[in-house]
Amino acid sequence: MTSRPDTAGEPGDGVLPSDTAATDDPVVAALRQALPDRVVTDPEVLAACTADRSGHRAEAPPLAVVEAREVADVQQTCRIASAHGTPIVTRAAGTGLAGGAIAGGGEIVLSTRAMDRIQEISPADRLAVVEPGILNGDLNRALAAHDLWWAPDPASRDISTVGGNIAMNAGGLLCAKYGVTREAVLALTVVLADGRVIETGHRTVKGVSGYDLCALLIGSEGTLGVIVEATLRLEPLPEGPPTTIGAFFDSVDAAARAAAAITAGGHRIALMELMDEPTLAAVAAQADQDLLSRGRAHLLVQCDGPGAATLAESVVAVLTEHGGDVETASDEQRAAELLALRRAALPALEAQGTLLVEDIAVPRSRLAETFAAIRELEAAHGVTIPTTCHAGDGNLHPTFVVDGEEVPAEVWAAAEALFAHALAVGGTLTGEHGIGLLKRAWLPDELGAEQLQLQRGIKAVFDPQGLLNPGKVFAREEA
Amino acid sequence: MTSRPDTAGEPGDGVLPSDTAATDDPVVAALRQALPDRVVTDPEVLAACTADRSGHRAEAPPLAVVEAREVADVQQTCRIASAHGTPIVTRAAGTGLAGGAIAGGGEIVLSTRAMDRIQEISPADRLAVVEPGILNGDLNRALAAHDLWWAPDPASRDISTVGGNIAMNAGGLLCAKYGVTREAVLALTVVLADGRVIETGHRTVKGVSGYDLCALLIGSEGTLGVIVEATLRLEPLPEGPPTTIGAFFDSVDAAARAAAAITAGGHRIALMELMDEPTLAAVAAQADQDLLSRGRAHLLVQCDGPGAATLAESVVAVLTEHGGDVETASDEQRAAELLALRRAALPALEAQGTLLVEDIAVPRSRLAETFAAIRELEAAHGVTIPTTCHAGDGNLHPTFVVDGEEVPAEVWAAAEALFAHALAVGGTLTGEHGIGLLKRAWLPDELGAEQLQLQRGIKAVFDPQGLLNPGKVFAREEA
Repeated sequence: MTSRPDTAGEPGDGVLPSDTAATDDPVVAALRQALPDRVVTDPEVLAACTADRSGHRAEAPPLAVVEAREVADVQQTCRIASAHGTPIVTRAAGTGLAGGAIAGGGEIVLSTRAMDRIQEISPADRLAVVEPGILNGDLNRALAAHDLWWAPDPASRDISTVGGNIAMNAGGLLCAKYGVTREAVLALTVVLADGRVIETGHRTVKGVSGYDLCALLIGSEGTLGVIVEATLRLEPLPEGPPTTIGAFFDSVDAAARAAAAITAGGHRIALMELMDEPTLAAVAAQADQDLLSRGRAHLLVQCDGPGAATLAESVVAVLTEHGGDVETASDEQRAAELLALRRAALPALEAQGTLLVEDIAVPRSRLAETFAAIRELEAAHGVTIPTTCHAGDGNLHPTFVVDGEEVPAEVWAAAEALFAHALAVGGTLTGEHGIGLLKRAWLPDELGAEQLQLQRGIKAVFDPQGLLNPGKVFAREEA
Repeated sequence: MTSRPDTAGEPGDGVLPSDTAATDDPVVAALRQALPDRVVTDPEVLAACTADRSGHRAEAPPLAVVEAREVADVQQTCRIASAHGTPIVTRAAGTGLAGGAIAGGGEIVLSTRAMDRIQEISPADRLAVVEPGILNGDLNRALAAHDLWWAPDPASRDISTVGGNIAMNAGGLLCAKYGVTREAVLALTVVLADGRVIETGHRTVKGVSGYDLCALLIGSEGTLGVIVEATLRLEPLPEGPPTTIGAFFDSVDAAARAAAAITAGGHRIALMELMDEPTLAAVAAQADQDLLSRGRAHLLVQCDGPGAATLAESVVAVLTEHGGDVETASDEQRAAELLALRRAALPALEAQGTLLVEDIAVPRSRLAETFAAIRELEAAHGVTIPTTCHAGDGNLHPTFVVDGEEVPAEVWAAAEALFAHALAVGGTLTGEHGIGLLKRAWLPDELGAEQLQLQRGIKAVFDPQGLLNPGKVFAREEA
């Protein structure tokens, strides 16, 4: 998939001339000398770093990958890169959806994927201390032995890392009840661009000493520092299995109104996922099931913790009142089948072509009109936009299915109109995927000139040479 | 109460020469011209602004108070102050405990107390939009009509403002379950030092577009901008009354171990408050009740929401196992009496003298050893340190009772040793009161030189002239 014209021509886009003899590059030579067994220049490894799961790809490969195993490796890499003025792209699993960890010509990839140790699990303080490269799923499997879990739960949990979550302030399915990643991180150890180390945040629940740099670093997409250790706030595992409810509706409008009514009613559901008709059609085609005769939209709700059964009864009443054909799972097997329906959405769409997954969020009262706007955009631009939605928190993933590598102009036009809609109803360009390369052109529309200037000022305080993930989040400033 | 020698001699300490003919001051004249009915120079009003509830007082009064009623008033004040290079101290109710809103000679007080409107309550989006001057208690009374509440619940809720909470990232009694203020604020509108306005954060649950300046501004103690509007994340009111449990223990060590066991056991209590023996003695003396024959420490626990009764049974079992003499309130009247015991602590101590209320927080597994350290400090320095503790989140308020206005040297020495203990066990100088004037001398010990430099850099990005609350949080840099 090619970049939009206005995002090309910068490091990270990979259109800078690449060093074809990377091992001769003085920065690579210096890295090899300092970290002999950590530097990789295998062309296949370098090529893999030019892409993530956004569909975007840099045109030229990076100079080298440093596979850090210790904090000292990260510091050394940053010192050498600073001395040479070479950009650093921090990367772990490469599962990002906005191009935030894509590396191109002239850049060094600093991989923290191999830093995947759990340093401490403390049930007494309800926290864990981990390295950034651990997979979310692996962490939660280790925590389950202590009846604990880390609540951030992106759909990618089995392939994405904790460090990536934090760099992105990832969301997921459970945010309405359990919050986003920012709420689940107590402290961070971070290597600055020049190799110095800072410790931000607290091991305590409360702490108000100075500015909250921990919160600032969460979601900074690798542009302010390299996260090398995280202290995570844990939750006790909810007792017993959750209650799972599925409901088909005649229209996405009815499903969206039902979802909004659950929020407005103050029901503290754990998860609420909406699929529209084009998504259901894709799932039906893939599974060879006749879903559309049951309804044109589907809502999946889970209630957990104390009082889950009582809460579920209230939820069923609201869904029924809004015309839902409602089923409460009778056992864990049936609950798993209902969840599987939702999990089938992305694979079913991927079977149809290359995906451009958008990520707007809107106030929860505006869900129904946002689905109406998506249907209007489909008609106006001659495209189909299957949309899944974390309806509990108002985060939608309108998805464009593209043939081949080129994104047609009408898709960009529809995406741009979608962003404008989100901002117009008090929403945001990105609920959980981040800005990365893909959305930086629209960031000024959301932030405004004054705030953008402050954000660039903060970037300059942390990274005066502009070496950390340049061109991500912010477009390069005009000379 | 006088300042420590190393914190004196700066604006905000009030030892700069004051302008005795304030109305002749050009900045006051300019303010009067621009905002004729907003500028107050009544000596009593000015004198009130030289103090808060920290016991600290500036020696000279500020130049004037601007009583803002609209965002435009705040902008105008900032523009005029910037043009004259005059410092601005933002202030609302003046209930701070760290000297953060104290104003001295040569400074303008920008009061947002009269900006107290509720702009919007949206049950559909579970949010409210408010001006900063509204009292916490007034807001929650208005929200209760919608079965909603704003969770930050400082003990001062009936006298402190939402804007002050946010400027401080205030905590309170319910943080272990409901989080601190940062988690309960979605968006802020902020006037910058030069009068420009920015809107940070989102009206949505999720949003990751650019750096999280909203989180950065929360807890920045008036040094980065002036909060003029806040969008607050609301919670549904828990159904039914909470279950309230009181327990006396033979020693504070036993009470602290019981509290730690409740945390370690994963019990999601709403509130857990500990009082030690000197505090109980003060309450007993004030109320003429024989409390000490019942025990030497007291723990108060509340469980709320679904499953509260079941949870309370588990809590009672843990408390009993740790030697507690446990009572579960049989009705709301008795629950109120148990709560009243805890609420009596501060007034009972205030009856004994001037208070210096400290505010350390420690990891919850370190509670018992922190109480032991406090007893050792009492012996070493010949002082008594009655201590209350938000045991659910590890936040202690060791309190020094002083005769008269002067803080004796042994009190400062004990306080300094207390801070050192907190940092040594992985804690913080301040869990919820902030740095203000009182703790800035110790902030470098907690943050380290590198992080302090970044924080000062951020301050300079927002406020290049250094006009917003100078001398608060950070000591003035050496020339």
